[in-house]
Amino acid sequence: MALRPKFDPETHGLNKKFRLTKYTGLHGGGCKVPDVLVKLLHELGSNQYHDEQYIGGMIMPRLGIGLDCCVIPLRFGGLSLLQTTDFFYPLIDDPYMMGKIACANVLSDLYAVGVTECDNMLMLLGVSSKFTEKERDTVIPLMIHGFKDSAEEAGTSITGGQTVLNPWCLIGGVATTVCQQNEFIMPDNAVPGDVLVLTKPLGTQVACNAHQWLEQRNDKWNRIKLIVSEDEVEKAYHDAMFNMARLNRTASQLMHTFNSHGATDVTGFGILGHAANLAKQQRNEVNFVIHNLPCIAKMSAIAKACGNMFGLLQGTSAETSGGLLICLPREQAAKYCAEIKKVEGNQAWIIGIVEAGSRTARIIDKPRVIEVQTLEDGTVQSVPPTTT
Amino acid sequence: MALRPKFDPETHGLNKKFRLTKYTGLHGGGCKVPDVLVKLLHELGSNQYHDEQYIGGMIMPRLGIGLDCCVIPLRFGGLSLLQTTDFFYPLIDDPYMMGKIACANVLSDLYAVGVTECDNMLMLLGVSSKFTEKERDTVIPLMIHGFKDSAEEAGTSITGGQTVLNPWCLIGGVATTVCQQNEFIMPDNAVPGDVLVLTKPLGTQVACNAHQWLEQRNDKWNRIKLIVSEDEVEKAYHDAMFNMARLNRTASQLMHTFNSHGATDVTGFGILGHAANLAKQQRNEVNFVIHNLPCIAKMSAIAKACGNMFGLLQGTSAETSGGLLICLPREQAAKYCAEIKKVEGNQAWIIGIVEAGSRTARIIDKPRVIEVQTLEDGTVQSVPPTTT
Repeated sequence: MALRPKFDPETHGLNKKFRLTKYTGLHGGGCKVPDVLVKLLHELGSNQYHDEQYIGGMIMPRLGIGLDCCVIPLRFGGLSLLQTTDFFYPLIDDPYMMGKIACANVLSDLYAVGVTECDNMLMLLGVSSKFTEKERDTVIPLMIHGFKDSAEEAGTSITGGQTVLNPWCLIGGVATTVCQQNEFIMPDNAVPGDVLVLTKPLGTQVACNAHQWLEQRNDKWNRIKLIVSEDEVEKAYHDAMFNMARLNRTASQLMHTFNSHGATDVTGFGILGHAANLAKQQRNEVNFVIHNLPCIAKMSAIAKACGNMFGLLQGTSAETSGGLLICLPREQAAKYCAEIKKVEGNQAWIIGIVEAGSRTARIIDKPRVIEVQTLEDGTVQSVPPTTT
Repeated sequence: MALRPKFDPETHGLNKKFRLTKYTGLHGGGCKVPDVLVKLLHELGSNQYHDEQYIGGMIMPRLGIGLDCCVIPLRFGGLSLLQTTDFFYPLIDDPYMMGKIACANVLSDLYAVGVTECDNMLMLLGVSSKFTEKERDTVIPLMIHGFKDSAEEAGTSITGGQTVLNPWCLIGGVATTVCQQNEFIMPDNAVPGDVLVLTKPLGTQVACNAHQWLEQRNDKWNRIKLIVSEDEVEKAYHDAMFNMARLNRTASQLMHTFNSHGATDVTGFGILGHAANLAKQQRNEVNFVIHNLPCIAKMSAIAKACGNMFGLLQGTSAETSGGLLICLPREQAAKYCAEIKKVEGNQAWIIGIVEAGSRTARIIDKPRVIEVQTLEDGTVQSVPPTTT
């Protein structure tokens, strides 16, 4: 694929040193506050977590806080309300792509429960109080356009939202759908023998950080420049950006076709954190064991060079708008991956198994790292390991 | 009413100088960015503004961005999705009451369209990165409790949300409902001869600011201290806090009983700004003319002493979680006010009229200011004007 040209502030009339990522102290999925979140969940009553309700003669599933999306039974004929919200700070410098990523990221929570049609989106926007007027009037419309274009690509639209001034630039949204029970897949039916499929490579945070170090030519760049070239970092950053902006919609549609037993999307808590959350939700006594880690090319090498800084190979590196992690019957998984490849052109990976256990998740010692790249034709594929 | 004791940081183990309102540079409804919002609306396509759709053999109303709440026709038997979001920064120092206000404020957008049952709320939370750990662990649970208690009072619950670290403390939410057409009132049917009713007094921002000046004993306090006593400012702040935390739910229910022709809630753009927005939405060629301004006692005196700073008497002073501004048939308005008083004990006021015109709003020269106070029994009432 021809690389999207880097966002050039000067062609937009901005100072050439303008960087969107400077308008925050935290980036992307890394801005989540897990310990506070845990307390918050406690405050709101963890009994809501997972439940069933008998409404209008039907047993209706209810899903509370803790996974991606809430499922609220409605009083009308077996319908449920599914909704989710997410917002965060810029982690890349291209405002248009940042808008697309924010939109893909919030929709991903619906996609994780097999919902492919979103009835409405709200957009949440924090305009940095540190923007000049010119910066504001350039950057914000680009972000909005990106968000809107992705919403259209997803077949939905944005009706409503809130915009505030804030020290840090902030973008996110709310995605809501009303649907029947057969239109969503509760994320709680994994059985021993299932396998785990992942639909996007890991390493988005590593790529964004490495790119920032390259730009700043700082000490960290000096540490990794023996391992990766500038071009490789630029390419990884570009690939990360496009992976984050990619919708998990096809991945979600195919969950129905291939009888998925439940899924989650991979974001701020890393692959292992989200696998653990999903494991905790299961009705059956199962463990998730991850053997393979598909990573944006060169990101595992960078992560290794940085010691424990990212936790990429430990599964704890934050991702933004990551792939779906899907439980599938063993005999369906390869077909699922083949079909996603046929429809979208992109590779998905069988990364682990579901075994009997006590609802936890782990990564095996020395997991296999699969290097992943976006090709000339725009599709995402594994690449043969190189010697570096 | 016995005054709620002031939030005392020391009884919570915090430094006595801790003030929640210091964790933001902007307060409440004042943080909205009207010009950016206008551009945003333009970006999202103002053709969504107001429309009808023919779905499943029914004409279904659709309401886009610009008023309080969007109305999205669903594909299921005449049902509509109504939702709204709002978030802002602390404008009072009591974290529990701040949580209640944030909840009342977001629900108010549903109440404005006559929706009294909310199917789900999401809570949006920004934990100030400047909080100490102790401050965070004290303040955030109190805010969550306040939000949750008001949600329960409203007969709904919070399932989902997002929490991020942010320089400024931030709180808000999303309120969503699915209902039939007869359960909501489109805000577009005012006719000449209607009158305008307001369900909460104005002046919340003036009260919060005056209270801050009193605490800081600054120049502005020196300017107003000849006009108001410390006790009067404390009382006004207290009244403002309770008015902001009060749900507009009864006000909304009674809109159905008394055949309301549409309503809006009064927040960041002030009474005139919201009246103008509502006027713009009308199907009929009408103007809204405001004659009376019910204000928290002493706030008009402060506003006058501060020149054009607030615009309270010009109708432009920002409110947070203000009352509903309701169009009612003339013969129903007094009955509406009497009934709200009977049910809640609180006064509502006829403040203006609807006349033939070109969909604008104005305040007459020298509007009558009605001084309003919360009484010992907790109800909100007009008080006879005093000589000050």
